[in-house]
Amino acid sequence: MPEVTAYSIDAPDGEFTKTTITRREPGPTEVYVEIKYSGICHSDIHTARSEWGRAMYPLVPGHEIAGIVTAVGSDVTKHKVGDRVGIGVSVDSCRECDECLSGNEHFCTGKGDKRKVMTYNSIGRDGQPTAGGYATGITVEEDFAIRIPESIPLDKAAPLLCAGVTTYSPLKYWGAGPGKKVGVVGVGGLGHMAVQIAAKMGAEVVGLGRTLAKRDDALALGATEYVATTDADSMKKLRGQFDIIISSVSDGLDIDLMVGLLKNRGVLVEVGLPQHPATFRIGSLVGRNKVLAGSNVGSLAEMQECLDFCAEHGIASWVEVIGGDEIDEAYEKVVASDVRYRFVIDTGTFDA
Amino acid sequence: MPEVTAYSIDAPDGEFTKTTITRREPGPTEVYVEIKYSGICHSDIHTARSEWGRAMYPLVPGHEIAGIVTAVGSDVTKHKVGDRVGIGVSVDSCRECDECLSGNEHFCTGKGDKRKVMTYNSIGRDGQPTAGGYATGITVEEDFAIRIPESIPLDKAAPLLCAGVTTYSPLKYWGAGPGKKVGVVGVGGLGHMAVQIAAKMGAEVVGLGRTLAKRDDALALGATEYVATTDADSMKKLRGQFDIIISSVSDGLDIDLMVGLLKNRGVLVEVGLPQHPATFRIGSLVGRNKVLAGSNVGSLAEMQECLDFCAEHGIASWVEVIGGDEIDEAYEKVVASDVRYRFVIDTGTFDA
Repeated sequence: MPEVTAYSIDAPDGEFTKTTITRREPGPTEVYVEIKYSGICHSDIHTARSEWGRAMYPLVPGHEIAGIVTAVGSDVTKHKVGDRVGIGVSVDSCRECDECLSGNEHFCTGKGDKRKVMTYNSIGRDGQPTAGGYATGITVEEDFAIRIPESIPLDKAAPLLCAGVTTYSPLKYWGAGPGKKVGVVGVGGLGHMAVQIAAKMGAEVVGLGRTLAKRDDALALGATEYVATTDADSMKKLRGQFDIIISSVSDGLDIDLMVGLLKNRGVLVEVGLPQHPATFRIGSLVGRNKVLAGSNVGSLAEMQECLDFCAEHGIASWVEVIGGDEIDEAYEKVVASDVRYRFVIDTGTFDA
Repeated sequence: MPEVTAYSIDAPDGEFTKTTITRREPGPTEVYVEIKYSGICHSDIHTARSEWGRAMYPLVPGHEIAGIVTAVGSDVTKHKVGDRVGIGVSVDSCRECDECLSGNEHFCTGKGDKRKVMTYNSIGRDGQPTAGGYATGITVEEDFAIRIPESIPLDKAAPLLCAGVTTYSPLKYWGAGPGKKVGVVGVGGLGHMAVQIAAKMGAEVVGLGRTLAKRDDALALGATEYVATTDADSMKKLRGQFDIIISSVSDGLDIDLMVGLLKNRGVLVEVGLPQHPATFRIGSLVGRNKVLAGSNVGSLAEMQECLDFCAEHGIASWVEVIGGDEIDEAYEKVVASDVRYRFVIDTGTFDA
């Protein structure tokens, strides 16, 4: 049973401390991945702080994992020792329900022993709470390990497993491409991927934020324009312009304002998970057949597509690499939107 | 200039009185339609009572019009004298904007002299307020007169021009058909058409209402089940069941409850025009990629499709035919949902 070094937290108001956890030996269809980098997603923070319901402590978060396969089970066919792979928000699903059978494991409806297993804060097939990527290794089903193309450095690849696919999936589903205008509200961990992906899909991309602070970055990421949502005149000019607006702003988004920016039949996609109910004029959707949609990560196939797309187009996450002892500080900065644009933990620092 | 008998209202709290209005002689591309029946849409009431902004009085409402062509302009090619035609919510559009050119006249973006002209309470090309279908005749552009198939009686056809296409359009757009489960919230003027159309499209249809009062009618219209939204146990069984839910409930719809009934990627379509903002948990859309959409009537092509579809499948509106002197009473009943399921004014009563 491999023992690995991990960073865990013991309470909603706790701090991360270095610890040792045990991973299982890979079963016949499993691989063991030596984790090199693990991104810090805002979900990690919500979970660690029990903001989405009481977490199971001690908790090892992390679902933007990039590493190297160092052992494979007897029946593994997809990966071999030495392969570069990533792991996202889930590590197993029932493989039997209509969703799993149609390649939508992220919507798996399995129950009981067959339920979907999330990468952390979930009960695994062994009945034990799962532990995520803030660790030096993990054992997973081979199907849930995604191939990372050689051209993407592992640190910049890690966030693609969640932030990447979470924006890639709705952009593809709702038809971002040449001739389409895409707005990205909130150029942060998710938004900075949305700008890059939408631009490489061929769409015209406009960044939107409360202030112009992220303007230069947004333009460098591929946006052709950046507008402050507090600038009424500029916002007025954008009315009725967008085919798709992707929002990763969880709470406080002015939905009526955003819907006003959509073209007829345009779609506002929310990819965050707001904690509070929103109030808006549903009638604003009716007159021009507008759409408000939610989107949650993506399938395993979409994760692979997203990684391959990013490699093909030479894009990846903009990251700030940190050590294991900087996680608490990084959490504060993420909450303050003070990161360009994803903190990624270098697990090489764990055993220093 | 044809003079026609009409029913008009003079103030938000006024009553309908019989009057005479003048229609123009058909221009080269126009037809004159002798109106036989005119449906009463809830929009008529909102407009007549200035609930959607101050109306232009005297007002002759009516945008569910069925009649016979009795004169045609010199260049008319689509219709001839004697043809059975219907007219919906608009009577002209710019014909030049991207929306018009792509067959989406209902989204016409024309401005000034080229703006879209609504059937009533709008400024026509002659600079005068338009008057609707509560009249014995109307002059319209031939493109805005839709052929009514012989098999549909004119009284039962009239509501198809608004209530019919308003439900047909989103059901088609969002993919109602075999293997799909469609919910219809609010079996009224629009809802009773949604039930029939969705069932004939091959979907399994469930009616939803506050009480079971409309259960028998819903089943007769084609629903396989009817559930009271106040019955928590029955509603629980419907969770995650629907591909599409069509709501014509304007205000007070429990959006969270309805979203909970949707399958993954399911869509809740609002076809009413709520006056008040709604509050709901946008996060409920995110987890399972659910969609909240608005839909507003349909294009001229969809109006024709809807009429042809209804004729092919032997369906039409369930109507209560009334005389011109019963309009005020009918309005009260519509507001109280006391109609099965559309009042249609017989203009043959106007000159009695």
